[in-house]
Order: sequence, then C-alpha cells, then structure tokens
Amino acid sequence: MLKVALGQMEIIPGRPDLNTRTMLSMINQARQSQANIIVFPEMAIPGYLLGDTWEQSAFLRDCEEYGRQVIEASQDICVIFGNIAIDWNKSNDDGRVRKYNACFAACNKELLGSDNFPYPYRIKTLHPNYREFDDSRHFYSLRKLAIEREQKIEDLLQPINLFLSGRALQLGCILCEDGWSDDYATKPVTIMQKNGPVDLFVNISSSPFTIGKNNKRNRIFSKQAAATGVPLVYVNNIGVQNNGKTIYTFDGFSTVYNACGQITAYCEPFIESLKVIHLEKKGGNPEQSISVPDDHSIASIYQALHYGTKKFLNAIGIKKVVVGASGGIDSAVSAALYAKIVGPENLLLINMPSVYNSQTTKDLAQILAHNLGCHYSVMPIQQSVDQTITQLVNTPIMNLAANSQSTLNISSYIMENIQARDRSARILAGAAAAFGGGFTCNANKSETTVGYSTLYGDLAGFMAALADLWKHQIYDLANYINEHVYQREVIPQASIDIVPSAELSPDQAVDHGKGDPIIYPYHDFLFRAFIENWNKATPEDILQWYMQGILENKLGCQEGLVNKSFNSPADFIADLERWWKLFTGMAVAKRIQAPPILAISRRAYGFDHRESQNSTYFTSNYYKLKEQILK
Amino acid sequence: MLKVALGQMEIIPGRPDLNTRTMLSMINQARQSQANIIVFPEMAIPGYLLGDTWEQSAFLRDCEEYGRQVIEASQDICVIFGNIAIDWNKSNDDGRVRKYNACFAACNKELLGSDNFPYPYRIKTLHPNYREFDDSRHFYSLRKLAIEREQKIEDLLQPINLFLSGRALQLGCILCEDGWSDDYATKPVTIMQKNGPVDLFVNISSSPFTIGKNNKRNRIFSKQAAATGVPLVYVNNIGVQNNGKTIYTFDGFSTVYNACGQITAYCEPFIESLKVIHLEKKGGNPEQSISVPDDHSIASIYQALHYGTKKFLNAIGIKKVVVGASGGIDSAVSAALYAKIVGPENLLLINMPSVYNSQTTKDLAQILAHNLGCHYSVMPIQQSVDQTITQLVNTPIMNLAANSQSTLNISSYIMENIQARDRSARILAGAAAAFGGGFTCNANKSETTVGYSTLYGDLAGFMAALADLWKHQIYDLANYINEHVYQREVIPQASIDIVPSAELSPDQAVDHGKGDPIIYPYHDFLFRAFIENWNKATPEDILQWYMQGILENKLGCQEGLVNKSFNSPADFIADLERWWKLFTGMAVAKRIQAPPILAISRRAYGFDHRESQNSTYFTSNYYKLKEQILK
Repeated sequence: MLKVALGQMEIIPGRPDLNTRTMLSMINQARQSQANIIVFPEMAIPGYLLGDTWEQSAFLRDCEEYGRQVIEASQDICVIFGNIAIDWNKSNDDGRVRKYNACFAACNKELLGSDNFPYPYRIKTLHPNYREFDDSRHFYSLRKLAIEREQKIEDLLQPINLFLSGRALQLGCILCEDGWSDDYATKPVTIMQKNGPVDLFVNISSSPFTIGKNNKRNRIFSKQAAATGVPLVYVNNIGVQNNGKTIYTFDGFSTVYNACGQITAYCEPFIESLKVIHLEKKGGNPEQSISVPDDHSIASIYQALHYGTKKFLNAIGIKKVVVGASGGIDSAVSAALYAKIVGPENLLLINMPSVYNSQTTKDLAQILAHNLGCHYSVMPIQQSVDQTITQLVNTPIMNLAANSQSTLNISSYIMENIQARDRSARILAGAAAAFGGGFTCNANKSETTVGYSTLYGDLAGFMAALADLWKHQIYDLANYINEHVYQREVIPQASIDIVPSAELSPDQAVDHGKGDPIIYPYHDFLFRAFIENWNKATPEDILQWYMQGILENKLGCQEGLVNKSFNSPADFIADLERWWKLFTGMAVAKRIQAPPILAISRRAYGFDHRESQNSTYFTSNYYKLKEQILK
Repeated sequence: MLKVALGQMEIIPGRPDLNTRTMLSMINQARQSQANIIVFPEMAIPGYLLGDTWEQSAFLRDCEEYGRQVIEASQDICVIFGNIAIDWNKSNDDGRVRKYNACFAACNKELLGSDNFPYPYRIKTLHPNYREFDDSRHFYSLRKLAIEREQKIEDLLQPINLFLSGRALQLGCILCEDGWSDDYATKPVTIMQKNGPVDLFVNISSSPFTIGKNNKRNRIFSKQAAATGVPLVYVNNIGVQNNGKTIYTFDGFSTVYNACGQITAYCEPFIESLKVIHLEKKGGNPEQSISVPDDHSIASIYQALHYGTKKFLNAIGIKKVVVGASGGIDSAVSAALYAKIVGPENLLLINMPSVYNSQTTKDLAQILAHNLGCHYSVMPIQQSVDQTITQLVNTPIMNLAANSQSTLNISSYIMENIQARDRSARILAGAAAAFGGGFTCNANKSETTVGYSTLYGDLAGFMAALADLWKHQIYDLANYINEHVYQREVIPQASIDIVPSAELSPDQAVDHGKGDPIIYPYHDFLFRAFIENWNKATPEDILQWYMQGILENKLGCQEGLVNKSFNSPADFIADLERWWKLFTGMAVAKRIQAPPILAISRRAYGFDHRESQNSTYFTSNYYKLKEQILK
C-alpha cells in the first residue's frame, strides 16, 4: 500500500518565495502523516500565467533556487512538483534561454529520473497554445526536444523509477495537457504505459476553472485510468491568475482515479487542502468509488465569481469598493456580490440620476443599499452634464490662420455618452479614490459583445466581474443570490422584473416599458454563437440555419422566437447585420480598453478571444444567401 | 533569363475580397510585362494578424474560394502567393480544423508541387510564437506534420518543380520565419538546397516593420543567398495590421539578393509596387549590387509613424482628430503629426487649463495651433473640477441600516487625477464626438512604463501613436518634424526647451522650473532595460551592474549620471524600487485599459509584451545585493 498526499495548494503567480513556503509546510505535514509521496501542481513554484516574466533571467534563477530548497526538504518522502526548468546551455526557438515546463521528483534530497532521460526531471510533451494558453511562447516541448535530439518521442516518454518502502515503483509523471491528448497525434499516457508498465500515474496540473470543465476532465481521466488499468492522481492548484485582460480562477478539485477508472477521492474545490490517500498495490482491491458534484450549475458560477473576485481584490490590494447603482439588475447583482466579499462596511453604492432616471429605479437603488446595509449616496449628474454641453456648444472653435470661427453641435446620442462618462470618470473614479478603493464595471457579456456601453463610462472600472455572463445568466444569478446566498430579498424583485434600460434618453423610459435595443432571449444566444461556438458562427452560418429552419435549434434559444421578434426576413437580416457590425467593429475598440474580465464560460473576452481591430466582413457566400432570402 | 515580378501589395487584414482584387490586377500587369513569375506576400489573401477570426469556418471557406480565383488567373504566368490552406479532414492540436500557413504556386490554372509533397502547396516549417506572433495558436507547422506522418522534416522540405519558358526550374518556396532559422534546430533553406539543388529561392513574408529590422534581415538573407549560391527573392507586404493592443506597420521593402548575396533590387518601403526584375541563369553574371537605405534613423521612425497612423485611421474610419494641447512637447508632436495626416482643416486642438497651467504653456498651445493652421479652442476645466470636488466632499454618504452618515475627503493627489479625467473623459471625448472624429492619446513610452498618467484621463484616446517612443526620442522627433517635415518652426522651440510637466499642482509649476518626477536622461534608459532588453533586466541585474560600476554602460545612458542624480546608494535604491513597483504594479493595470499602441521599437507594450497583473516581486538575490550595498 502506498500513501500519497495531494498538495492542493494555492499558488500565487510570480511569488516563488511564498509558494515555496506553502510547499515546505505541506511537505512537513505529509511526512508527519507518513505519506510516501506528496504531489504538488504544475508550476507550483513560479505560478503559471506570468506573461513575459519568463524573459527575466533573474526570475528564472530565483525559481531554480527555490526549487533547490524543495529538493532539500525531501528527506524520507518523495516530492513531486512542477517548476520551470532551465537549460542555460541551450536556447528556445526565439533564441532566449531554454525553458521547460517541468515535473520534478525528489527523494532524500536527490532528483530522480536521469537514468532514462536527458534531464533529472520530466518535461511537458503537449503544449496548449489555444484559448488563454501561451505555452509554446515560453516553453520548449518534448516534441521539439525529440526533433532536436533526432530521437523518437516514444523513446523519451519514460516513467521515473522510484524505490519506496522497499519496493520498486514506476511512476508516470505527466503534465496537465499531456492527459488531454484526444486531439493530438501523440498520446503521452499510452506511450509511457508501453514503456513501463507504470504503477501510478500522476498528472500535475495548473488548470483554470471554467463551467463544465471538471465534468469533461472526469470523463477523460476515468477513461484513461481504465484503459491503462493504472491508478491516476490528478493534482491541481487553487488561486487566481490572470493574463492581463482575463482573470482565471483555479478550483483545484484534485482527484484520484482507481485502476478501473472510478473516482475514489477528491479535494473540495477552491479550498487549500492536503489530502492523504491510500493506494492499493496493483492487483489489490480497487478503492470504493464515490460521486463528485456537478460543476454546471448556477451555484458553481456563484462560487467561482465569489472566489475569483475576492482573490483578485486581495492580489491587487483593493479592500473597499464603490458600485454605481442604477436600480437595474446588473449593478444590483454586482453590489450583492461585493457586499459578500468586502463586507457592507467597505461597500459604497452611488446612485447618479440625470433627468432621464425614473423615480422607480432611484428608489430601487436605495432599497438595495438598505437591504445590503452598505454605504449609500446620491450624486446627481444633471448639472454637470448640462454645463459640459453648454461649454462644448458655446466655446468658439477658432481657426487662427484663417481668422474664422465656428461652434460644435451635440446630438442626443452624444448626450447619452456624456452622461455615462460623467457618472464613471467624474463621479465614481473620484469617489472611489476618496473612499480608498476602486469602482466596479458592471457590464455583462451581452453588452460587451456588441459594445452597448460607453468607453470611460459604464465600461470603466478596475474589474468586470460579470462580463462573462449573458444577461439571462445575470437573472439566474440574481435569483440564486436572493434565495441561496442571502436567503432573503436583497436584490429587490422589482429590479429583476423591470425592463432592462440604460435610462439615458426618453426612448429608454422604464416607466413606459421602454429599454435596451437588445432582445435578450434571442440576442443572448445569437451572440453566444458568434463567440462561444466551437467553430465561431458568422452571418453566413446564421442565414444558412435560418433558411433551413433550424436557427433556434442551432442557437439554443426558444422555438418561434425569431418569427415573433421580426416582421420579415428583411427585418431579421437588418438586425443581424446591425449587431454583427457592432460586434466586429466598435465593440472591438471598446474591448481593447475594457477592464479585466473574470472568466466563467469556456470562452471569455480578452486573452481567450484574441481579436484585431479590423473592418467588418461578410463572406461572398453570405451575400448570395441574403439575395436568395430577400428574393 | 527569368523575369520575376515582386508583388509588393497592400494587404487589408480580414478582407480576402479586396486583397484578391489587388492580386488579380497585379497579375494582369505582370503578364503584360511578360514576367514568368509573380510573387505575392505570405497570407496575401486573408491577411496575417486576424486574432481568432481563424476559428470562423465560413471565413476559411471564403479564403479558399478567393484562392481559387487567383489560381484561375494564372494563365501563362506562374503565380506564387500566400493563403491559408485547410485540410478539412484533419485537425489542429486544439481539435479545430487543420490550418496551414501556406505558399501556393499556380501555373496555367493548376496548382504545382504535389509530386513530392502530400499537398499541392508548401507549408511553413518554423512558426514564430514569440513577440507579437501567435502562429502556433492557429497554424499547423511542417514540424508537427512530420511527426504526425512519421517522416523526417528533411524528406518533406522539397522544392517545387516548375517548367517555365522551356526549361525545368526548381523553386525553393519558403515562408517568412523559415528564412530566420538561426535560433532553430531546423534550417529549411539548407535542407531544401540539399534536396534540390534549388534554382531560385522565394521567401514570401508578412513581416512587420520595427526599427533596425531590415538591416538585420539584409545581413541574414545576404549570407543565406551567398551560402547556397542561389538567388533569393524576398517579397513582403505593406499596410497596417494589429492584434488589438498593438498596431504594426508593414513596410514591404521587398528585396532581391543575387547568388553572391548582394542586393540587386528592392521596392521602396511603404509603397505599393509591382517591380519586374531580371534574373540571370545560374552561372551567368550576377546582377549589379546596389545599396539600400539604413532604417535606423529618426526619419524612418517618422515615416513609420506617419504611415501607420494614417493607415490605421483609414482602417477604423476616423477622418477628424481632436488633440488635447497642453503646450508641452508630447501633445505638440502629436498635433504636428496628425496635421500632416488628416490636414489642418480636420484637426482641432483644445487647450484645457486649470489654475495650475502657466500662461507660458497656454500661449505655446495657441502658437502651435496657429503654426499648424488648424482649429483651436480653449475650454477651461477649473469650474467643473471645483464643482466635482464640492459635490464629492459635500454629498452625504449614508448608512441606511445604521442610520449614520459621513463625507469623503479629497487629497491633492486625487485632485490631480480629477483634472486629468475632466480633460479627457468630459471635454475631449465629448468634443471629439461633436467634431465628428476621435481624440488622441499622447502618451510616450517612458510614462507608459511606469503609469505616469491617469486612467480615463490622459491615458484615454482611440490610439497612442507615440507610446512606443522614449521621451528622448520624442525630442528628436520634434526637431526632425520642424527641420525636415515642415522645414519651419511649427512646434515652438519653447515647447521643446521647457521643463516637462503635467502642470496638475503647484509642485509642477513650469515657470519655477518644476516638472515631472522622471529624470528622463537616466530613467528612459533604466526603463528601456526593463522592457526592451533581450533578457529583461530586473532590479537584481541593476544592482549587480551598479556594484560593478558598469550600470551606465549597460543601460546606454550618459556616464556619471547616476552619481549626479542620487545623493547616496540608499537614494539610488529607493528610486529603483519606486519605479519597479510602479512598472510591475499600477502601470500594468493602466496598460490593460490603454489604447492601442503603434509599434516602432523591437518591443512595444501590448501584445508584444504580455503581462499579468501580479504583485511586484524582488528576487532573493536582490535583497542580498541590496544589503551588501547599504552595509
């Protein structure tokens, strides 16, 4: 029997000093529990999402030094951990020093594994270089090493030979993506098993949480363990890491699969823990299978939002938060979330009415603040907006060379944006600084998709916690927060029921049932197809599905909604073109300057959806389909 | 003798329709000039920097269709061009459809090259995945294909067999990075020559301009041609492409190297042109060598700035521009640049004084506008700033639950930021919309490095044209613009001579010689080491160099400056820590929300310098060195 400790630690990205401290403490605990092996996550020492910090030689040397401290601490226990490995004599493809995303196995202060591999560690074979991942930018893969050495990958994927509690053990060390090889020509687990046979697989990971990912991982890894007939220990970190535009939570959820592919143990998500498990000898009775919680629910979304926002605030040192509270649903959900994170005593809600804001929503903002027990203030913007407009239209615009002058005109559209900027850049930014904190961006994914927001206005803020959730998910979240988080009506039901509106003009008067131009029950799903579909949908695809009568089914929205929403095919097409132009036009410019977004979905804006500010494009086939439809 | 046409075209990213039109027209011209071959750049049809547009299947099919149109146009001429190639039956590592960055050779409506390769086209072997490049994210390389097919790379790198004007010809088609193989284990040109011998190499590229890159390219490619003894035709596109945060110019500068490695022809940079050149038979007299202009000078910087800004404005549809003119040098250079691009009739300068702005700078802003002959307006901000402060400090902050209330305090630091935001988010954004255009961000690279700017204030704008230039380069540019672009003193000499200052408080009073806390002659070079050094410098490196007495030499700044600038080692270290904390702290948060930056240097902020918003870090060795110095 083997005792294995799962070191589900919080990793602080870019802090090898703090991470090493955590590891040393967990190693001590594991030794006291008489564990034979302790397994830490991938890149446990440096962290994973560090941008181009990998180009700082001093940082690399520092990580090596902390790695040595961990190796020194391996007396009487085998320590498996992820770190950057540097070969100072070789270079990466970009000419910089050779860096490997590596898995180290240390025992009694010695590194193991050099008997059947060029280095005393193992390196990652498959480098994810899609979505938010940039592995190929920084690290040299086993695939490249094989080419360089003129060896077969098959010859390089060797288990590590251990000698533990008096018996020899072949340990299959793989790193994260190496276990997700379905789309690759190379299957590291299968190859290593052939080179073994392996007694135990460990997959050390640094795998961000997104909705539904754990379900998929359990399917894949269970199959893997069953196919090889070898138990598999998956260790993932917790914490929050970001790559600038996008913030990722890491849920840990470290899991043990037995030789039949059943789950026999797991660590609670988002909680630092050291779990010691017993593994039977090969051929012994496989451990009892247990069931794991589903990660698809709104509860999981709330958990990730809460955890990610809290950790990110800690990381950037924000303790107090200002939320612009309109009385609408987005800001209400945002406020209710932050109240739980920083506490109502560190939360300030500011309502900033202009003449276009209804008494209804003004009252709702106040009720919300009262329900939360937080600070509340009303700072009207009408006077400032009026003065801005007066200044803009009355100040002469001179042409000194021609000795002529003119003035500017302000359209109602410009006036809407002036209001939005007055709220955020004038009031909220100043008030947040004076309050000693930051102000939030309450944007959702629907408006982020089409840029239905004002730059330096409601798109401003230190972070956009809700911007990876569609409007219908915001509603679900509001209900969940009332029912399960607070277990009382904190978000006023009227804020949930009212027509969603920016209240920036008479055309958006909520008391007359007027509001946003977005038909959320349809557009949420149309927009989702643009960004989240595996093969991103374009207007050509949409018209194709429309002609085939399968559009609603393909989008996943309510049947009959398209005909109900549009009077004619021409209307339908005009609507499609309007939003596609915004999505690929002005909205891109806005997203470039948007705050960091917390990722929840399998495709968040920012680093996970790279985009260029290019002109809107319709394919030639789109025009053909359009002509057919309109004929 | 062979007649080769260099199709140095402008590529519009994401517009296969427009790019194909350009190509068809150039093919016709080349045919009329009786060229045997016409060579177009890499990714001539789709463009290169497209973000995740590559995940739209409809777009891929569209590019294939336009590719067929080009193939159809190859009657009596061999057309070499770059396009995306799709193998719909295979998948990339991410599971999406297989995409190759490919070079096609078509003659008489037929694709060539399938006699010695699995596809009737050639694919890129070396994928740049550093700096601004993301090739591995989207495309499948020859290296991966070799592994998948269990073949050697050497067997796959085959020339294309042509039959032109009655003789057989082996054409070595390589794509961009394949010619820059110094840092790679695989050398495509050498291998292909071995598999040939090759009669002519063509390198189709989509290679962004950065200062000094052409000089390097000429060194490498000359050596390559001489080493193989085979002439080399390099064709690059012009235009501007971006990846959201960073905008790249493409200068073309297509070049012909003869079999001795001498340059015999080139296309003028940044100009669309079809150049037909004569290549002697192998063994014939090599063509006359010519010299190429150096690209290191301030003239090259101005050319790239002018071209890139102009093209980007076209691309995003901005015809009119508003510049906030402070009387200082950055906004003056910005205004002088934009006046040349949009014309003074489409340029509006707005001076926005508070009580802290001197008469000196107010006058300088007006003189600048007069010199440029553009529109000019003075819109003071003091009244609005005062009212904002009054509103913030007087409005009660209530705690409805506790039935208590308080007020906010505004520090002088907060007041500075209120002024900056009042200028940009209140005046400039509104005025630009009313003027019918956009407003500029005039930030330079020095302040961008340490976040010496206000978010939603002077960091706002549709584009930051100067943000890849250090302050000393801004001075050089000001002089160049006066002397060479306008050939008169457009930028007032006093704006060049005055102490640089934000004029946001009495501590920054220019008339008393007070200004920015940045000592540009030193910090420009310190900051450059943080970001532009090949191995990024950190405080540890700086202290090391300081102790060794080689700091100024390593940074490239003036000798003796460090001792002159700091009273003691402790002062020096405090300064270093102050800026490092800003660079890796608040400045990162600001850059995440900064406008797109036009790239000039070999390392621009944005997509070329990926960064995570993590906490500031000092290595353990830094602390040791610091202790030694302070002892």
